[in-house]
Amino acid sequence: MQRYFIDEKYEPKTTYKISGEPYHHITHVMRMKEGAQFYLVFSDQVVIQVEIIGIYSHEVHVKEIAKENQEKELSLAITVACGYPKGDKFEWIVQKATELGAAEFIGFPAKTSVVKWDEKKLAKKQQRLAKIAREAAEQSQRSVLPKVHLLSKQEDFLTLFSHYDYVLVAYEESAKQGETAELVHLLQTVQNNSRVLAIFGPEGGFLPEETTAFLQKQAVLCGLGPRILRAETAPLYLLSAVSYHLELLNK
Amino acid sequence: MQRYFIDEKYEPKTTYKISGEPYHHITHVMRMKEGAQFYLVFSDQVVIQVEIIGIYSHEVHVKEIAKENQEKELSLAITVACGYPKGDKFEWIVQKATELGAAEFIGFPAKTSVVKWDEKKLAKKQQRLAKIAREAAEQSQRSVLPKVHLLSKQEDFLTLFSHYDYVLVAYEESAKQGETAELVHLLQTVQNNSRVLAIFGPEGGFLPEETTAFLQKQAVLCGLGPRILRAETAPLYLLSAVSYHLELLNK
Repeated sequence: MQRYFIDEKYEPKTTYKISGEPYHHITHVMRMKEGAQFYLVFSDQVVIQVEIIGIYSHEVHVKEIAKENQEKELSLAITVACGYPKGDKFEWIVQKATELGAAEFIGFPAKTSVVKWDEKKLAKKQQRLAKIAREAAEQSQRSVLPKVHLLSKQEDFLTLFSHYDYVLVAYEESAKQGETAELVHLLQTVQNNSRVLAIFGPEGGFLPEETTAFLQKQAVLCGLGPRILRAETAPLYLLSAVSYHLELLNK
Repeated sequence: MQRYFIDEKYEPKTTYKISGEPYHHITHVMRMKEGAQFYLVFSDQVVIQVEIIGIYSHEVHVKEIAKENQEKELSLAITVACGYPKGDKFEWIVQKATELGAAEFIGFPAKTSVVKWDEKKLAKKQQRLAKIAREAAEQSQRSVLPKVHLLSKQEDFLTLFSHYDYVLVAYEESAKQGETAELVHLLQTVQNNSRVLAIFGPEGGFLPEETTAFLQKQAVLCGLGPRILRAETAPLYLLSAVSYHLELLNK
């Protein structure tokens, strides 16, 4: 069943009015008629199943049929932060990591990032990534729509660390040295609803001065198994491992 | 350090001679000279670090410096079997799943597969996927080079089930119904070196008659968390979860 995110908090009403992009998709792409049903996801993560009771020139009117009761979200809010990778890799990190439950994305220029994006390019890229996140969140039946923040300076990224309960850095050298304990320790001890910042390098990895700066801000270097994962694969490993531990193993 | 797979078993020699594609890559792409070092991976998974002692018109001669001693392979041999997905998705499943430790790939036509490949197209596709697997295995520092088998009939696929100790089907309906136990049970009870066949549907999923046929062959339906994953994302979740359980959690 289709799923649409709307930018308002849930409050019980007899009629909900849907306009803008979801209106367009419902009427012109899906060509739904009166009586058709879909899910409506509010900004406070309440999800309701609704039925169309009227279609007007710029609005669809729906009524609530039921609440969705299956928990779709990880019990940790994981922010995936990537040093800008090449080409369109960030786009598919956002798509796949949204499917896998990421709460938020941050892009920042790492020292070995090849791409150089100015403010105008960043704004355009942000829009595109936000659209990809929205489509992936609808498709994977999320109840959170991950936000995307693209930064133009690494210093700005470092100032954000204090907003998180844990900061992990996926570090190739840790993988090579057989580091296996940090992620397990986090998942065995973390409290529900903690905020985790997980940092991933671009293709060229992080320079020692970058990991030093992260470590000074209480980050922990963490291995993700013995194989060397590409920049775009490591975030998917982390999110899958978190889901496995918290949603399958500890269920 | 570079890594090359060669199609022979390891036996101790004073000189190893490398020709063909790896020769080309070493001399023309990497432009290595005498004294340069890299890893050589034999077909029986022995990995040695070597140094170039001579470069000739069609061969590079190397001597063994040391054995690689870190275990890079999952303790389960996981075959990723996919109902043919659209476009180039199978290519990146092969790339990413090789990084994540898959032992082997099988493609087969599922009932909802949109692509129709004849024998000629399959042969070409197989070559391309094998090349992608080789490059990903080198890059991720594997000691196994995953093979790729592309089938033209679903019946041929079913006859292979008996070669495996376990058969899992990633099933969207299981995810929706909150099935969480099967993968955990497998990983908690499986013996080292078991062979696992993990089956993933195309975009349209499997029809009931297909899952019935799988179940009649002892397959188990398995959920991969509460979010609906795309055809190309589910194999990556499974492999990451297996690595997390066996290589981090149970280390």
